[in-house]
Amino acid sequence: MMLIAIPLYEGFTALDAVGPYEVLTRLPGADVRFAAVEPGPVTTDAGVLSVVAPHALADLGQPDVVVVPGGPAARDLLGHPHPMVDWLAAVHPGTTWTTSVCTGSLILAAAGVLAGKDATTHWGSLDLLGRLGACPTDRRVVFDGKVVTAAGVSAGIDMALALAARIAGDDVARMIQLGIEYDPQPPFDSGSVAKAPPELVDALRRHFAELNAAVPV
Amino acid sequence: MMLIAIPLYEGFTALDAVGPYEVLTRLPGADVRFAAVEPGPVTTDAGVLSVVAPHALADLGQPDVVVVPGGPAARDLLGHPHPMVDWLAAVHPGTTWTTSVCTGSLILAAAGVLAGKDATTHWGSLDLLGRLGACPTDRRVVFDGKVVTAAGVSAGIDMALALAARIAGDDVARMIQLGIEYDPQPPFDSGSVAKAPPELVDALRRHFAELNAAVPV
Repeated sequence: MMLIAIPLYEGFTALDAVGPYEVLTRLPGADVRFAAVEPGPVTTDAGVLSVVAPHALADLGQPDVVVVPGGPAARDLLGHPHPMVDWLAAVHPGTTWTTSVCTGSLILAAAGVLAGKDATTHWGSLDLLGRLGACPTDRRVVFDGKVVTAAGVSAGIDMALALAARIAGDDVARMIQLGIEYDPQPPFDSGSVAKAPPELVDALRRHFAELNAAVPV
Repeated sequence: MMLIAIPLYEGFTALDAVGPYEVLTRLPGADVRFAAVEPGPVTTDAGVLSVVAPHALADLGQPDVVVVPGGPAARDLLGHPHPMVDWLAAVHPGTTWTTSVCTGSLILAAAGVLAGKDATTHWGSLDLLGRLGACPTDRRVVFDGKVVTAAGVSAGIDMALALAARIAGDDVARMIQLGIEYDPQPPFDSGSVAKAPPELVDALRRHFAELNAAVPV
């Protein structure tokens, strides 16, 4: 079996975790486990959805794959000791793949995983990722050795399919894509800074800049 | 406030619910509530992920929007009385939008919502949707009056963005798309029956045909 750990923390963004889960749980031999510092329900960023972490991080053992979700609250884990950051630093040397979605990469950076590595995050936090010692790129999915980072929220699905192909081969990844009918047809083409109307980009950019300015790193 | 109800049942597919949730929870005035026949944790299809339903369906009151997720277990709600089906039949006349993702449309059909209506579902269950009295189409998102159905699993994100635009205007939907960085770049183009390698389609089609043959409708 291949142990795939998805560490959760209060205020994570649900789709960051559930997108990759929905892909990786379909891999042959996958043993996907949601875990947190303390087991129990973990509330996501919007406050109306809780996901159960049945496992304590400390009890998981050595995962083969780690997927760290992002969320506005990822910033709360930076700039001071945090048991999830310590856990990531401890298990990363033993993983086959260490991955993140969205601002989950900020947490990887805090754990020392991204020092000098190419990496990405939500477009609104690329500068903060640089402040944390990574080399930010604006590609949607970034492989640097065994470390894989994805851009904002929905990019975790693309990342997980690319990872599934590396782990189990292209045909398994294609079969999973067909199974979840991932043939995206968004009604607008506004999913990136380059494509969205500039006034929408500016409004959101101001929002993220304000959040990031308050981070003590 | 706009009450958006997402009814859960044992064995639903997580991304079917979380994709639309991640979009709709960002609508101005959205009050998204996860609910089940009995409140508490609800386990998804893979058995390793539970989502908490804090509310009982019977206590929700009249929702403005309903989003019914699919999953292999949607079939378990067909062909016999089920309280979630009864609830859908009771609240549908009062909704502004009644929607589904993947095989959630089979449950809508069981509730009488799709009689004679254009609708879709996961590609592997279009025939079963027809047996239940809907007019199956293989478009990714189908609007028929106030009833909106989406194709398999990941299609709920596209559906929710289209719905967000109808509810709050195109710019709000574009802003949400940018916020969740939904600029899909799957590593393969195998997300539909028309595009995937035929041998993969055949293997999965046999799997779904077997599941659907056992449904007592």
